[in-house]
Amino acid sequence: MLLTVPSINYENESAEEQIHNQQLQENRPQMRFQSFINHYGTVTPRTPTIKRIKNQLNKFYNALSCTFIINILLDRITIIRCLKKYNLRKYLFADIIAGITVAIMHIPQGMAYGILTTLPPIYGLYVSFFPVLLYMIFGTCPHLSVGTFAILSLMTAEAINEIPLESFNGINNQSYDVTLNLSDAMIINEKVGIATTLAFLVGLMQLILSFLRLGFVTVYITEPFISGFTTGAAIHVFSSQIPSIFGVQSPRNVPVIFKLPRFYVKLLSSIIKNINWISTAIGFTSIIILFIAKQLNDRYKSIMRIIIPSELILVIIGTLISHFTQLHNRHGVPVVGPIKRGLPSPSSPSFNHISHLIIHAATITMELLAYGISNMVSSFFQCYPNTGSLSRSAVQEGSGGKTLLVGGFSCLILGIVIIALTPLFQTLPMACLAAIIIVNLKGLLFQIKDFYFYYRISTMEYILWIVTFATTILFDVDIGLYVGLCTTFLINTIRTQKPRFSVLGQVGDTEIYKTIKVFPLAQQYTNIKILRFDESLYACNAPFFKRKFYELIDIQLRQEPLIGYKKQELNKNQDIKYKYVILDCSPLNFIDTVGVKLLIEIYNDLKKRGILLYLSECRSDVRRTLELMNFYEKTAPGTIYVTTHHAVTAMKAKLDNDLQILNTITQI
Amino acid sequence: MLLTVPSINYENESAEEQIHNQQLQENRPQMRFQSFINHYGTVTPRTPTIKRIKNQLNKFYNALSCTFIINILLDRITIIRCLKKYNLRKYLFADIIAGITVAIMHIPQGMAYGILTTLPPIYGLYVSFFPVLLYMIFGTCPHLSVGTFAILSLMTAEAINEIPLESFNGINNQSYDVTLNLSDAMIINEKVGIATTLAFLVGLMQLILSFLRLGFVTVYITEPFISGFTTGAAIHVFSSQIPSIFGVQSPRNVPVIFKLPRFYVKLLSSIIKNINWISTAIGFTSIIILFIAKQLNDRYKSIMRIIIPSELILVIIGTLISHFTQLHNRHGVPVVGPIKRGLPSPSSPSFNHISHLIIHAATITMELLAYGISNMVSSFFQCYPNTGSLSRSAVQEGSGGKTLLVGGFSCLILGIVIIALTPLFQTLPMACLAAIIIVNLKGLLFQIKDFYFYYRISTMEYILWIVTFATTILFDVDIGLYVGLCTTFLINTIRTQKPRFSVLGQVGDTEIYKTIKVFPLAQQYTNIKILRFDESLYACNAPFFKRKFYELIDIQLRQEPLIGYKKQELNKNQDIKYKYVILDCSPLNFIDTVGVKLLIEIYNDLKKRGILLYLSECRSDVRRTLELMNFYEKTAPGTIYVTTHHAVTAMKAKLDNDLQILNTITQI
Repeated sequence: MLLTVPSINYENESAEEQIHNQQLQENRPQMRFQSFINHYGTVTPRTPTIKRIKNQLNKFYNALSCTFIINILLDRITIIRCLKKYNLRKYLFADIIAGITVAIMHIPQGMAYGILTTLPPIYGLYVSFFPVLLYMIFGTCPHLSVGTFAILSLMTAEAINEIPLESFNGINNQSYDVTLNLSDAMIINEKVGIATTLAFLVGLMQLILSFLRLGFVTVYITEPFISGFTTGAAIHVFSSQIPSIFGVQSPRNVPVIFKLPRFYVKLLSSIIKNINWISTAIGFTSIIILFIAKQLNDRYKSIMRIIIPSELILVIIGTLISHFTQLHNRHGVPVVGPIKRGLPSPSSPSFNHISHLIIHAATITMELLAYGISNMVSSFFQCYPNTGSLSRSAVQEGSGGKTLLVGGFSCLILGIVIIALTPLFQTLPMACLAAIIIVNLKGLLFQIKDFYFYYRISTMEYILWIVTFATTILFDVDIGLYVGLCTTFLINTIRTQKPRFSVLGQVGDTEIYKTIKVFPLAQQYTNIKILRFDESLYACNAPFFKRKFYELIDIQLRQEPLIGYKKQELNKNQDIKYKYVILDCSPLNFIDTVGVKLLIEIYNDLKKRGILLYLSECRSDVRRTLELMNFYEKTAPGTIYVTTHHAVTAMKAKLDNDLQILNTITQI
Repeated sequence: MLLTVPSINYENESAEEQIHNQQLQENRPQMRFQSFINHYGTVTPRTPTIKRIKNQLNKFYNALSCTFIINILLDRITIIRCLKKYNLRKYLFADIIAGITVAIMHIPQGMAYGILTTLPPIYGLYVSFFPVLLYMIFGTCPHLSVGTFAILSLMTAEAINEIPLESFNGINNQSYDVTLNLSDAMIINEKVGIATTLAFLVGLMQLILSFLRLGFVTVYITEPFISGFTTGAAIHVFSSQIPSIFGVQSPRNVPVIFKLPRFYVKLLSSIIKNINWISTAIGFTSIIILFIAKQLNDRYKSIMRIIIPSELILVIIGTLISHFTQLHNRHGVPVVGPIKRGLPSPSSPSFNHISHLIIHAATITMELLAYGISNMVSSFFQCYPNTGSLSRSAVQEGSGGKTLLVGGFSCLILGIVIIALTPLFQTLPMACLAAIIIVNLKGLLFQIKDFYFYYRISTMEYILWIVTFATTILFDVDIGLYVGLCTTFLINTIRTQKPRFSVLGQVGDTEIYKTIKVFPLAQQYTNIKILRFDESLYACNAPFFKRKFYELIDIQLRQEPLIGYKKQELNKNQDIKYKYVILDCSPLNFIDTVGVKLLIEIYNDLKKRGILLYLSECRSDVRRTLELMNFYEKTAPGTIYVTTHHAVTAMKAKLDNDLQILNTITQI
């Protein structure tokens, strides 16, 4: 008897100690969240919105000093900084060479894109001159070549074409054909008025947006969207040049719906009827020459110091051949026609049709939204909307320019061309200019391979790309832009709608819990289910969460079928398999009211079924919403554990405890 | 000497051992992610999309058995299940009582909402009859009372009003006033045609959506959106009933922009000119009586077994008083007027104006999107669009109904009323019906307190509520619906745009790292910065990530000011403060191509500055995208650690090692 008593005592002690230890473990500060924060102390960092705004204003006001304001103003005129640091010996020669190289590119491209806007080519040269000058003074990046840009030119052309000819001052539609030559100047005048007003509006919108600090909207213009959009727009530009290559008139008034296919049907019949073989020959030859020259330039860039000015050479040779063989008069090859010369004097944009142009301006603003003052000021010099060009910028960087002064030297050359040489290009075949545009589209058109890139990597970005691209080519550039933008928003919602909802298991002997789908060896415990929902829980994915949650813990929410069901199987399914469900909340970046309500509902429903729900790894934002929604009052106080491992340890201890009690009862 | 050697040896051994331990620790499987997965083994759970679809189809095809199909069909006719389980003794009496109670509510409400749609009141009774019958057969919830619903009635009225009177068959606008009485029946006929066609289209769209399993779009209809929308719509309904209360004509053709304010201006002048004092008195008395009766019902619900049928009593008393004092003929009080009786025979909807109604139908479909067949079938019985009503459902549940048969008994009573009693209500003052509608709006109007609820808890849901509510009351119900829906998408993007980006510290001696803003005592280590970005990293928040990231590790990306800068201060800022930056990726639920590119860019930029970037706790989806984008090739192979603590331990070991080497060098 004496022998057994201490033994029993010892056993009892050990059991008690064990329970005590478990309780200790449970009460260790890091286990339950409440005790964890009580022990380590937290602060609530939220300041009320009004106070935050006040602080911001105060900060801003305190910073307002004379030096500060002058610095801000001087900061905008970047050429001061540039001249201050200018190292004549090191930079000057490189800048002059680069300026000349870029100017040589500007001349043919300016004329080509000028024609793309349906204006005379000289206006393209204006756009290659004034914005470059302004960017030299106010710009920041020495390698960016501003000026004409294919997609913008196309959008300008659309704005011009949309205003009906009848509304042009003094031009009556019936007498249009008769008075064609007489009113040509007037039509051009009106068109220039529209284009410059558009440039002014675009500049104004850009300034307003940057003043209101709304530049953040650019983040909605995501890469797949840009890629899809510009590829589609490039196809539009490409299509617009095909008539010039074949020397036929461009089909007019193509309806917006399925625009490109219809355009090609019309174009094909027009080509079959009116093809000009000489123009076609010139066009294809030009494309091939330019393409080969570009390839050579690319390949031998590192060896040669100077880039072959293939476009300028083409323009000069084309003009000469056309002039001496009288291509236009004898063979009916469409040529550029008379070009006026000289720089325009400043004049205000016409401001006609503003209400009509405001949508176009908004569309173009979306497309650029970065170049502020340049558009607005240059609109006073008969310039249409302009922006930076990637292909020219690449050349500008490659030709070794060092500072913003590259633009100045480029303007010098262009100014001379505009003032003196433009009339010489009269006999340049249109097909040459079309070839220049087409070959320059290479980069944009080759973006079509992004299709496969996104397909391989990211389904959602792939959908965005394809939707933007398809609407752009099937309908119109502006429709593509807006549909793409809406798709961006929609995708951000869809993305979070059906996230991965996984069962976790403990990896080896670590405290790390991973998806059993990826780590098949991760260990799961009887009676304990650990789940992780890989997204913030909110209204748009709450229904999915609920359905999937019950599915994962093997509770059927559906009714039994009406006929022929096997009772046994169902009863087995309705058996409760788990006593504890732990939801790892580490992926929850926020939770909204709908999400909290759902968690409370599930907690109470599971409780009725004899299952306890615990949360772990909730972040402070989530905890704050839970608190505001009275989550703790509506469930149990200790529902949140700090880490998943703590929760699992606590659950395992509880299960052991239950088992011991059960054993004790059985023993008795 | 002999004494020192073993001592040095011991020290050496200890140092060696330490380094060895560090290496061991570094090579421990859980440290670097690659070794972790090599040790514990992973599988790639992704099956290709096509294979997944195939599996789905196979699963579906295998399940296709005769029993399965019959079960699916029988499942739809829910009354079979109900009758099978029907317990006569237990349910029958309760169902009959509940049926009568609901019918008593249906009669006055049906008439009132019928008038709200601008149709004669009998059509409201039809909607209280046929859909209830259909829901009894096909429905699922025994407590749901389908039938007329205020906001739907208003939307039907809008659809009817939008089709201009001139288009009504055979009615000439000029002779409208003269032939008013003659063509009344024709106008009503036309209006009924529009309403039933609308109901048919809504039902069709609901069926198509549910057939295409597009029910998931309902998740976009979030709670704050519903709350804001129905509150705004309730204010529209409320406003529409004010003319009836004052006995004046409702203002017509109010422009959509700022609709309600303009409506009230017009209404006020109309009331001042034409107010009918007796109608006003009846209206206000009715509202007060109904309101008090409702309060009493609510308070003594538990004590009394039967609910006072206040609305029916009001209708009967109103009719009697009006009849015997000849309110209409003597005092010009607007009354209901002649009502035909009898149930309509089935007839096809008119299908006129379908193109006009399709938008309205889409709007209404969005608003319900749950009741499938009911709308389509009941459109053949001259019913306008219908849905469940919350207030009536509450009564139906409160009156103790047990099964779907409640609807049957309710229909029995309603059928008798429709067949025999409707003409008796001829002299019922309109003000009484208006009072019924207004008092029933109580619940919807009181949702306005959600404004404060969301304001307190969630800024984004608050914005959604206020935008939906404001556009609904300022413009129109349908505009509010669509603007609210777009706002839902926009908000899901904005939400993820500027997430919390926090500096973490080790909490006590645990392996847990928490925001130092919430846990001010959390410990940070010299030379190591631990950051956590609380959102998935993708195109829309990548610019924010970049800016904030450099800010948090004290690297200035901006240029120095032009004048008056203190060189010392800046140089101090440009000093590198950290050797290792650890980015805790646990909140990243996905990463897109833009995000990966940014991480690669930052990694390489930091490397140039002598800082090493490490990631920790990346989930498998993120790892997969990193892999596809060749992240590991473009950075260093061991960039990812399993947990933040592992990364910190490794960094600390490296720093100690560096220090030791430095010490050794100094010693030498």
